[in-house]
Amino acid sequence: MVTVDTGYAESMTDAPLWSFLGPAGTFTEMALRQVAPLNVELDPCQDVPTALDRVRSRAAEAAVVPMENSVEGGVNATLDNLVASTPLVITAEMAVPITFVLAGRPGTRLEDVTGISTHPHAWAQCRGWVHHNLPEARYVAGTSTSAPAQALANGEEAGYQAVLCNALAAQTYGLEVIAGGVADNPDAVTRFVKVTRPGRVGEPSGADKTTLMVQLPHNHSGALLNMLEQFSARGVNLSRIESRPVGDSLGRYRFSLDIEGHVREERVQAAFIGLHRTCPMVRFLGSYPRLDARPVTVLAGTSDKDFVVARSWVADVLEGRAL
Amino acid sequence: MVTVDTGYAESMTDAPLWSFLGPAGTFTEMALRQVAPLNVELDPCQDVPTALDRVRSRAAEAAVVPMENSVEGGVNATLDNLVASTPLVITAEMAVPITFVLAGRPGTRLEDVTGISTHPHAWAQCRGWVHHNLPEARYVAGTSTSAPAQALANGEEAGYQAVLCNALAAQTYGLEVIAGGVADNPDAVTRFVKVTRPGRVGEPSGADKTTLMVQLPHNHSGALLNMLEQFSARGVNLSRIESRPVGDSLGRYRFSLDIEGHVREERVQAAFIGLHRTCPMVRFLGSYPRLDARPVTVLAGTSDKDFVVARSWVADVLEGRAL
Amino acid sequence: MVTVDTGYAESMTDAPLWSFLGPAGTFTEMALRQVAPLNVELDPCQDVPTALDRVRSRAAEAAVVPMENSVEGGVNATLDNLVASTPLVITAEMAVPITFVLAGRPGTRLEDVTGISTHPHAWAQCRGWVHHNLPEARYVAGTSTSAPAQALANGEEAGYQAVLCNALAAQTYGLEVIAGGVADNPDAVTRFVKVTRPGRVGEPSGADKTTLMVQLPHNHSGALLNMLEQFSARGVNLSRIESRPVGDSLGRYRFSLDIEGHVREERVQAAFIGLHRTCPMVRFLGSYPRLDARPVTVLAGTSDKDFVVARSWVADVLEGRAL
Amino acid sequence: MVTVDTGYAESMTDAPLWSFLGPAGTFTEMALRQVAPLNVELDPCQDVPTALDRVRSRAAEAAVVPMENSVEGGVNATLDNLVASTPLVITAEMAVPITFVLAGRPGTRLEDVTGISTHPHAWAQCRGWVHHNLPEARYVAGTSTSAPAQALANGEEAGYQAVLCNALAAQTYGLEVIAGGVADNPDAVTRFVKVTRPGRVGEPSGADKTTLMVQLPHNHSGALLNMLEQFSARGVNLSRIESRPVGDSLGRYRFSLDIEGHVREERVQAAFIGLHRTCPMVRFLGSYPRLDARPVTVLAGTSDKDFVVARSWVADVLEGRAL
Repeated sequence: MVTVDTGYAESMTDAPLWSFLGPAGTFTEMALRQVAPLNVELDPCQDVPTALDRVRSRAAEAAVVPMENSVEGGVNATLDNLVASTPLVITAEMAVPITFVLAGRPGTRLEDVTGISTHPHAWAQCRGWVHHNLPEARYVAGTSTSAPAQALANGEEAGYQAVLCNALAAQTYGLEVIAGGVADNPDAVTRFVKVTRPGRVGEPSGADKTTLMVQLPHNHSGALLNMLEQFSARGVNLSRIESRPVGDSLGRYRFSLDIEGHVREERVQAAFIGLHRTCPMVRFLGSYPRLDARPVTVLAGTSDKDFVVARSWVADVLEGRAL
Repeated sequence: MVTVDTGYAESMTDAPLWSFLGPAGTFTEMALRQVAPLNVELDPCQDVPTALDRVRSRAAEAAVVPMENSVEGGVNATLDNLVASTPLVITAEMAVPITFVLAGRPGTRLEDVTGISTHPHAWAQCRGWVHHNLPEARYVAGTSTSAPAQALANGEEAGYQAVLCNALAAQTYGLEVIAGGVADNPDAVTRFVKVTRPGRVGEPSGADKTTLMVQLPHNHSGALLNMLEQFSARGVNLSRIESRPVGDSLGRYRFSLDIEGHVREERVQAAFIGLHRTCPMVRFLGSYPRLDARPVTVLAGTSDKDFVVARSWVADVLEGRAL
Repeated sequence: MVTVDTGYAESMTDAPLWSFLGPAGTFTEMALRQVAPLNVELDPCQDVPTALDRVRSRAAEAAVVPMENSVEGGVNATLDNLVASTPLVITAEMAVPITFVLAGRPGTRLEDVTGISTHPHAWAQCRGWVHHNLPEARYVAGTSTSAPAQALANGEEAGYQAVLCNALAAQTYGLEVIAGGVADNPDAVTRFVKVTRPGRVGEPSGADKTTLMVQLPHNHSGALLNMLEQFSARGVNLSRIESRPVGDSLGRYRFSLDIEGHVREERVQAAFIGLHRTCPMVRFLGSYPRLDARPVTVLAGTSDKDFVVARSWVADVLEGRAL
Repeated sequence: MVTVDTGYAESMTDAPLWSFLGPAGTFTEMALRQVAPLNVELDPCQDVPTALDRVRSRAAEAAVVPMENSVEGGVNATLDNLVASTPLVITAEMAVPITFVLAGRPGTRLEDVTGISTHPHAWAQCRGWVHHNLPEARYVAGTSTSAPAQALANGEEAGYQAVLCNALAAQTYGLEVIAGGVADNPDAVTRFVKVTRPGRVGEPSGADKTTLMVQLPHNHSGALLNMLEQFSARGVNLSRIESRPVGDSLGRYRFSLDIEGHVREERVQAAFIGLHRTCPMVRFLGSYPRLDARPVTVLAGTSDKDFVVARSWVADVLEGRAL
């Protein structure tokens, strides 16, 4: 465990340990705080694979990692890692608004700032604000949004008096907020996920999504249509699809998918059965509540009851009893 | 029962009674002879609805009726009747080569023939032969291929000395064959079916077909594609499709379908479940051996075993045990 | 030309000659009367192939034949014939209500009737009425609905005093209507078509349909879906589909289709181009006004203008001018 | 232009200026070197949006940016930016093997190294090698793979004696290679693209791909299938698909796609026409040679000639001349 001198991660022997994409004070930690128990012990990791391996090795109970390209990381690393190694499953997703504060050591005023540090991706999202408010400020690149904050707090900075970080990082490192709500796009949000070792799948909430990875048997667009028809034939809607080259010499693809619904629902199971029959690889990566809590639209003929009634009708047909 | 004075249909009290599209000596009777027990009692009927109603009323054990447009009747009457009333199911199909004999009373020679009678559809299939062999012959229309034969045998004919009928009718009515193998298309074949009251469905032969009627929920070609995808998503092939207007004010359609496979096979049941969930009407009309006895091609991923393995995998997913 | 002694078909030298499925007084003649010029010369034929060949040989200008199974004939003969020989095209469709009159020689009263003749299919559609009104009446089969009427008028009948025919036949042969509106299903309607030699295709009416025959390249349900997607990809709706075995050793199928729209419309042409590229046989069998005159629903993005705009956009893309 | 004191980018007045994701010595520069003219003037930029805006403003002639998540950046920034602003198009793609060298100031030996700096993503890809060869080495994060190299060359490093960078960076900054071929996965490759302002689209090479962005009209999986059928109906294969939320309140998606083929080919144009008709937004992002130079498989019925022949047949149909 990479501990940080920030007060948490002490020695509470019974506290659950959660790994995450560090360092302390990142947006990822903000996501973790939304779902972790209050007595969680933090385990900030250098990169996504390390955070996930901490769960695989049972060092950590859960990991929180970014699931969309964000100011600090990319989704592909997360998805590839989930599939490539010992199985893990997603059990929750969280959204974090990507807004920044301009922070400095206590007493720093806006007019004192001639240099600013942050991660380059964060800088790209604040350039408009900086151009308008501190047109002369020089940019100093950082390796994350919180690392420059930590350096500034420790007096180890070089060439800057303020950082663009999130509010948690400013608080964590004892910096003072010079300006809040810094973001060229105030609606920017990034999605994070909580990942655990697989176990018995819980009950649906009624507003769930399911993540899976599927490899196609052949390299032609008909194969993709056939795969998608396994969902549409059961009224299962997709909310995300991404092709990934398998990397073998056959030019094949696998697809990372989010679908609306829960693996305990019949229509999702029916689609899974269809995929397992026809695709060389299907990996279940978790059923969990949707961020927006919007109940899944169950099309006519695709409810659990519809499946039960239909199976009963087929049984009647076999016995010569169906109308 | 409309008995005919032709020797069968007597009083064998234990003989099973089968109805069929009469009169005696039709191609339909030839089809019946292929599958009926030797001691069958014949019940020739005036039309297809009558033959089927004889089974519904338990007067007959089975009915044999044409399933394709033939010289004597059309398939639509059969299909519509099967769906419109109390359910019946198809349990066998038979093919009969549609070739004729030119037959007359004993002693009649080809040069004696100046008039020929038969059903108009049969006439249409023999015109080339007649044009070549009896260019001067006059045509007298008949109501079936065997009724003129019966009339000729009984001395009730008017204006003809020979009939075009099948070999069975010539034999049945004691006529003499003047010329055999009469047919402009010597490969013409018509399909007939055996129909019974529904009962427990038997085991597949491995080379089966299944007939069903399905009504679409909406009147647009997307609805048809969705319906067909219920089959293709399970690798079930179609061998016949016919649209039929439902006849309501909504302009909706129903479809008569033959599919390859047996309702005791998992992939067919999965397709049936999908249809029952999404279509306002699905009627099972029988699973029975294919005429050509060609084993059904089971695509990769659609065998019964594939379904069993896939369901087992989903069960493992739910318990957190799947790879 | 098979003339009948019924008054028409005389010697008007400039009158157009139209062939049809005879004899005089059939429902087919009723259909013909809906669209033929007043001075039409009638050419009743024994069967559908004869009627169509009269047009091919330029003996007749047009033919009217049944397009749906009716009391007098089947559609398959029509469609197969259209495809099998020199091309003909459908230029109009007509609907005729299938209701009957009970007719006899002048002076015949209901209580005089102990025997009735008509075509067996017509008999099947009137049995309920007869059972209720003339329960003791004996049935005498006829070869069409008008042939027994003609025989009755000529004093050549045997065993019946009345016929079930249409009003035109009763009038044609000088019979008196004993009872009108005879039909167990008063809504029964049969569809007929007018067929001509192909020529320049006229302009759309806005409420058109198009008939075509397509052969699939392969014998699997995926091939059928691919073919149907050529229509759905352009928003073209189907209103009829029937599979027909091609009859070769490969077990292939061809499909008879009615689609909504006119071959002069862009979306229909786009679908035709797709079919021609991918199917071994496509035969155009006519674009003509729909019976119900209901304007075709043109889905968003499938109007002629949408095609023109889209092509213009592609041209802009190629020149680097597209937005 | 952000010039760097590395020798290029001087004052060659006629040299074309190309922007790229900097700083000098990145893998992106390696990609640029594959396709740029020898006298190119380099314009390294802090981030992808800056590099692309340099082309939009006509400051640069072309930009080279990463198109796949790599050690230095993500594809999403590139795709979103291409679509969000004034149009740009991709005109080439390049692959760069992602292998590293361990480099230090001249004279540095492996045993001298107790600290190593590089970008965190690069570190993740070399951890196995470091664990095996320098198990005691401390990691110092950097903002790119070349920035620490530059700092080391300038004597501005802190806490490390060696960097993991690419061979170009080592050469650019005058460092000495201590160990080459450092990579836990020696087959890792990242894709980059050359982007320019749109112009007349050139001729196909025969082995091309086309990139586009499409927004769906509705939020259901049927809409995705419909969109993909616009490709499959013309035999156009997909090689990449990624869903992107549009970000409006309707929960709609747009899709970034790579397809096999060139916009000057008929089947691609036909698919484009279909998309333009049915989708609220279609953006062409370039047709350019495939990295693997593997000729595109043209399915039967989808060649340019097939389209020409099919259009000619439709013209014949309209004139009554088609067989």
